[in-house]
Amino acid sequence: MDMPKRTYAPINFGDKLAQFTDRWQPRVIAELNDYQFKIVRIEGDFVWHDHPETDEAFIVLEGTLRIDFRDGAVTIGPGEMYIVAKGVEHKPYAASEVKMLLIEPRGVLNTGHAGGERTARNDVWI
Amino acid sequence: MDMPKRTYAPINFGDKLAQFTDRWQPRVIAELNDYQFKIVRIEGDFVWHDHPETDEAFIVLEGTLRIDFRDGAVTIGPGEMYIVAKGVEHKPYAASEVKMLLIEPRGVLNTGHAGGERTARNDVWI
Repeated sequence: MDMPKRTYAPINFGDKLAQFTDRWQPRVIAELNDYQFKIVRIEGDFVWHDHPETDEAFIVLEGTLRIDFRDGAVTIGPGEMYIVAKGVEHKPYAASEVKMLLIEPRGVLNTGHAGGERTARNDVWI
Repeated sequence: MDMPKRTYAPINFGDKLAQFTDRWQPRVIAELNDYQFKIVRIEGDFVWHDHPETDEAFIVLEGTLRIDFRDGAVTIGPGEMYIVAKGVEHKPYAASEVKMLLIEPRGVLNTGHAGGERTARNDVWI
């Protein structure tokens, strides 16, 4: 007798984003080994920080993200990505709301080691 | 004297995809620590294989990807992703062309340990 076939569900970015509206609060949507995929809404200016132990991937889903560096900046739109190398100080900025995907090892804080009031709760799944 | 500011370039998926037309030949577009981001065009049926040592992330950019498992399947469209867990046998299928992003550790072959004529050159950057 054949087993009934299972239908597995994909992870839909829009469906996940529709479940929250707050900004700068990353939600984990998937894990790849010890890496996490997080979606986040951002708007306005963040704090300067770095991640001394890891690179960080940004994939923009909607809006235009600018990441400032001490010596310049990169502008990232939908269908684009950028890797911020470990140890490089950066400050994300969104003139209007940006929806994006972050990929980084489990345990990385949004403010790196800068700390402060902008530090989000970590490892919040949606 | 202020240093002139640098403008860094994002990685644009469309620009990268426009540089090749062959199918089932992943191109590396970025590295995140020891992980690689690869873009690939696929159409038709692939071979059954697994990756005993790692999970594998699929993000669909255009088209509709189906991944068959021994006990079912998942259908993934644009704006969706799926993680195939390590050791799980799978077979990608695209009724018409799919453009997608793969994320996995550096060194992973497209056919896992199945080998054969469908095995693509690895670590080809674009």
